[in-house]
Amino acid sequence: MSVYLKDIPLEQAKTTFSDTLREVGLWDVLGTEMILLDENSVGRVLTEPVWAKISSPHYHASAMDGFAVHSTETIGAQPSTPIILKIDSSARYLDTGDPLPDGFDAVIPIENTEALDSKNNQAQDIRKPASIRVRASVAPWSHVRPLGEDFIATQLVLPAGHILRPFDLGAIAASGHATVRVSRKPKVAILPTGSELVPIGSELKIGDILEYNSLVLAAQVNAMGAEAKRFSITRDNFEEICLRTIEAAKDFDLILLNAGSSAGAEDFSSRAIEQLGQLLVHGVAVRPGHPVILGTIHCGQNGEIGTDRVVPIVGVPGYPVSAALTVEIFVEPIIARWLGRPALELPIVRANITRKIVSPPGDDDYVRVVMGRVDDKLLAAPLSRGAGVISSLVKADGLVIVPRGEQGVESGQPVTVNMYRSMSEVEKTIFCIGSHDMTLDLLSQSLAKHKRRFVSSNVGSQGGLLAIARHDAHLAGSHLLDSETGEFNVAYIQQYLPGIPIRLIAFVRRDQGLMVKKGNPLKIKQLGDIMRKDVKFINRQRGSGTRVLLDYHLKQDGLATESIRGYDEEEYTHLGIAAAISSGRADTGLGIPAAAIALDLDFIPLFTERYDLVVPHQYINSVLLEPFFDVINGVEFKNSVSALPGYDVVEMGKVIADIN
Amino acid sequence: MSVYLKDIPLEQAKTTFSDTLREVGLWDVLGTEMILLDENSVGRVLTEPVWAKISSPHYHASAMDGFAVHSTETIGAQPSTPIILKIDSSARYLDTGDPLPDGFDAVIPIENTEALDSKNNQAQDIRKPASIRVRASVAPWSHVRPLGEDFIATQLVLPAGHILRPFDLGAIAASGHATVRVSRKPKVAILPTGSELVPIGSELKIGDILEYNSLVLAAQVNAMGAEAKRFSITRDNFEEICLRTIEAAKDFDLILLNAGSSAGAEDFSSRAIEQLGQLLVHGVAVRPGHPVILGTIHCGQNGEIGTDRVVPIVGVPGYPVSAALTVEIFVEPIIARWLGRPALELPIVRANITRKIVSPPGDDDYVRVVMGRVDDKLLAAPLSRGAGVISSLVKADGLVIVPRGEQGVESGQPVTVNMYRSMSEVEKTIFCIGSHDMTLDLLSQSLAKHKRRFVSSNVGSQGGLLAIARHDAHLAGSHLLDSETGEFNVAYIQQYLPGIPIRLIAFVRRDQGLMVKKGNPLKIKQLGDIMRKDVKFINRQRGSGTRVLLDYHLKQDGLATESIRGYDEEEYTHLGIAAAISSGRADTGLGIPAAAIALDLDFIPLFTERYDLVVPHQYINSVLLEPFFDVINGVEFKNSVSALPGYDVVEMGKVIADIN
Repeated sequence: MSVYLKDIPLEQAKTTFSDTLREVGLWDVLGTEMILLDENSVGRVLTEPVWAKISSPHYHASAMDGFAVHSTETIGAQPSTPIILKIDSSARYLDTGDPLPDGFDAVIPIENTEALDSKNNQAQDIRKPASIRVRASVAPWSHVRPLGEDFIATQLVLPAGHILRPFDLGAIAASGHATVRVSRKPKVAILPTGSELVPIGSELKIGDILEYNSLVLAAQVNAMGAEAKRFSITRDNFEEICLRTIEAAKDFDLILLNAGSSAGAEDFSSRAIEQLGQLLVHGVAVRPGHPVILGTIHCGQNGEIGTDRVVPIVGVPGYPVSAALTVEIFVEPIIARWLGRPALELPIVRANITRKIVSPPGDDDYVRVVMGRVDDKLLAAPLSRGAGVISSLVKADGLVIVPRGEQGVESGQPVTVNMYRSMSEVEKTIFCIGSHDMTLDLLSQSLAKHKRRFVSSNVGSQGGLLAIARHDAHLAGSHLLDSETGEFNVAYIQQYLPGIPIRLIAFVRRDQGLMVKKGNPLKIKQLGDIMRKDVKFINRQRGSGTRVLLDYHLKQDGLATESIRGYDEEEYTHLGIAAAISSGRADTGLGIPAAAIALDLDFIPLFTERYDLVVPHQYINSVLLEPFFDVINGVEFKNSVSALPGYDVVEMGKVIADIN
Repeated sequence: MSVYLKDIPLEQAKTTFSDTLREVGLWDVLGTEMILLDENSVGRVLTEPVWAKISSPHYHASAMDGFAVHSTETIGAQPSTPIILKIDSSARYLDTGDPLPDGFDAVIPIENTEALDSKNNQAQDIRKPASIRVRASVAPWSHVRPLGEDFIATQLVLPAGHILRPFDLGAIAASGHATVRVSRKPKVAILPTGSELVPIGSELKIGDILEYNSLVLAAQVNAMGAEAKRFSITRDNFEEICLRTIEAAKDFDLILLNAGSSAGAEDFSSRAIEQLGQLLVHGVAVRPGHPVILGTIHCGQNGEIGTDRVVPIVGVPGYPVSAALTVEIFVEPIIARWLGRPALELPIVRANITRKIVSPPGDDDYVRVVMGRVDDKLLAAPLSRGAGVISSLVKADGLVIVPRGEQGVESGQPVTVNMYRSMSEVEKTIFCIGSHDMTLDLLSQSLAKHKRRFVSSNVGSQGGLLAIARHDAHLAGSHLLDSETGEFNVAYIQQYLPGIPIRLIAFVRRDQGLMVKKGNPLKIKQLGDIMRKDVKFINRQRGSGTRVLLDYHLKQDGLATESIRGYDEEEYTHLGIAAAISSGRADTGLGIPAAAIALDLDFIPLFTERYDLVVPHQYINSVLLEPFFDVINGVEFKNSVSALPGYDVVEMGKVIADIN
């Protein structure tokens, strides 16, 4: 028993859709319009080539302020044997751009002439002399912009399909056009549906889902050159969805029906399309995005059903990452066709993937990555794969596509990245990997002001050291306590990074303690309380500095980990621990006060620890990290960190040790 | 005696301007505004970081349609030993996105359950069973999107200075914001001045200059994120210019005063600025663009002069290429500052220059180039250097900057190109160099539909062969007549391209003849007429096929070149010849009928010739040239060429010979 549909391969889905649209004449420019050439013409697409109507310049023009002359009359002029040319018959003053008078064939720039009055003395007005003295001959056509220097009438100025840029407007005007024929903008209706949806800005109850997909979809299709209109939210009701779809079909060229996630929402969409037109595809083997629906509504402009007029409709999945990808894959090519421009092709680049990608072999798998250059290697780090994780769209520098038939990509392997961001932005990326600390967000904000993008991945302190060993990061944050010496990080660096010269730099000293629910209902006071049977603990993952700290103190206090309820349940960040407690999933966990405050929890401080930065020597004097050192050694950033509870910045920037 | 000002170095000019603006607080964000988050927010710049106000999801949510369970109750479930879970106490149906009920800790997807009725038979409604049977255990938190999976409250969503993209809007909404604080858009007044200027679309008289600079400038500053307003044309009148400047200063943040080219226009600008504020810089050592003026207007919002309120003003030169560059160099950094975003940095790439660049050593020299990849070498071909040649802006893929102090770049040397276009567009460029034929424009238009950019440079037939020898082009157009054999091109290819395997492909057979003024006032009938004393001839350049053809027939007819008036005056294209005749610069010249018709001349056909394409073998089967061969072998293109007068396309696409 399955409620899921059989997904068809992506290419087949695309072909089915485009073939259907081609049959009804909707796989070409939708329509054209003649527009007045003005600054709003930028971004419009030419539907016919622009041929020069006039030449530019449309006459021989002086290229300088100076005097028109007959070049033959200047032959023999030299510094010692100047020639005098009489105004009117042999020389005429011209401003730049003035037409060359008939019979004249060159211009001498004013600064190369001497203006004379009728007695051959220096003239008063250098532009109105009686004659001029010249001390050099000029070649024919010197300092003249000949007719058609820029364009000659009938020449191609711009081809059809060209997207207008600012400079193009000048060229079109210069070639004699005041109007230009462009494709009309496709009108796209965006219909969010779902009973659980609430508008942006609503007071949220548990179970409410903010409806922001329509906002992203509208912005996406506008950026593609179409004109989007967002409809208000439609409840999950078949009749209402049909009515709204008809309303949209009357006035729009394309409908994006963004299904809610509740049971049957998808069925409502597909049934509505079947009722009002033709359901072409239901389910595409693409990850993320499976429940894509493609179809056509057969609806007249008065809303009558069953007409020859066809309006394509795309059932867009509810998860934001799936929704955005559906628009990129299925909607962009249609809009490109309708506008008469080439479909968008992202620039591609090869990079090494930093973590294994596992892909379902039946799907085309779209994996968003963040990129940076470490040690001359271009790296692509896969972002969260969750279809609901919109932050992965925000962080993404590019898209890796693992094609149907492949099961993934091994760590370290080269992949092709379709890039959203320019390489120059990628080159400004500082990769920080390792333990999580909330001040890294502040650091990221501070570095943005200095043209550096600070990307931190949270894999725990040991994970960070291993990334440095693999040359996968520029620096790592670490707070690993050596249980023998009581010292932080040094022993671990020696163990994990042999032979790699490292500078260990102090960042913050911070409190660690137990987060508990507001008001501390279980009256947790000390570490030993996590052994209580009525206390559910939530742990950090193995390898994290907080876990090492916990295990160190449990051992020192002789407390057995087996007796701790939840010791094996792991979270990966301080905020993850706080969220688990806030939601009731656990009663307490070890972490830092900033995380407790963020989620309105109480905090019982137990220890302090040093959180250091591990920087390979090769980056100490790098241009890339220069602003980073400036920031951590500056007063402004230190002040913003010490304003947070539980942080001490006295040692920030201090070199703890040079190791190896 | 010089009317020219002393130019100061570019960096000094920029620093003078930015220092002055900094002193009066105009080197920072101009102002901020809180805007409602909607699709029009795209492109706005954040002036403060966005921190998550809520977590997303803001509760533990089911990631699938399925049943919430207690994971502990599923332990031991196996295909052979299923476990039955009673609805309500042990299992609850959830739609995707529904909150996980208190006490439950995992979700089993509906397709992994069997729905049972009260008698343990298959239930009617799979979403409303009495109990469910499961045949596998689930781990805690399976198929649950934990609170904060995407964002946790207080996390950084986006840094200040970020330019909003479609996806960002979703992330901001998801993190609990309905509004966002952004910089206000700077208001830029664009004042075209010049008595010779006429609006776009005007009927042109000799000496009229179309005023399109304001259009380009407005589109440029709008694209930078500002809001431009174009003022109507102001005559060259000091009082009027002052009044207009005051009018602009009242309501705008920045004034671009686009000077006319007539005498004194520049003086009016600088004097107006001196009168109304402070003239900071007059003349910058940058090419093109020397007569740049930088200053400030001290004017209150009611138009009173001499206030503390300062409005920066840029005197933009009149030539379109200089004007556009002035905005790129001086205006963009100010707008970036005012918006709180980083200044634009074009992506850079290294390429080899195809022709020597000669630069004035005192200037920063900005050279526009067109780019392509030939034979794995990335090439940058300099475009026309004329400050009035707006087509160079349209064609440009990038900008090469030869810094002050350097005298240029030798041909073949590597240069750094600041790129306007993406590398993927550059990679689609077909470089065709050699003889000019008007059908190349048609070819360019046809190839644009097939995602190829066809860039043709006109250097004459021999120049084209030399470019092929240097591996500077993918193909060359050639019509070189061998005077011994009467055959076209083959002998020349053998001579100029030894050892390079070449395929010679027929393109067009075309008429060549004498172009004369409409009505043929001098009654020119045959080649011999160009010997007449009353006939002024205009010649094509040495190495061009037309020149070879001319010289061949002159020799055959025993005509002496010395007796031809204008034999030494050269033009580089057929249209150049036509323009020279049209303007009266010459009476006749040899060329093709299409050029004559373009400029409304009469044409006396004398010879026919074969215009071939010279393609190195290595490109015959290249992906790049595939659409090129498709087009020249297709019917559509042949039809469009044969519709032109004087062309025969019978042989088009035929292989004439494989040589070497």
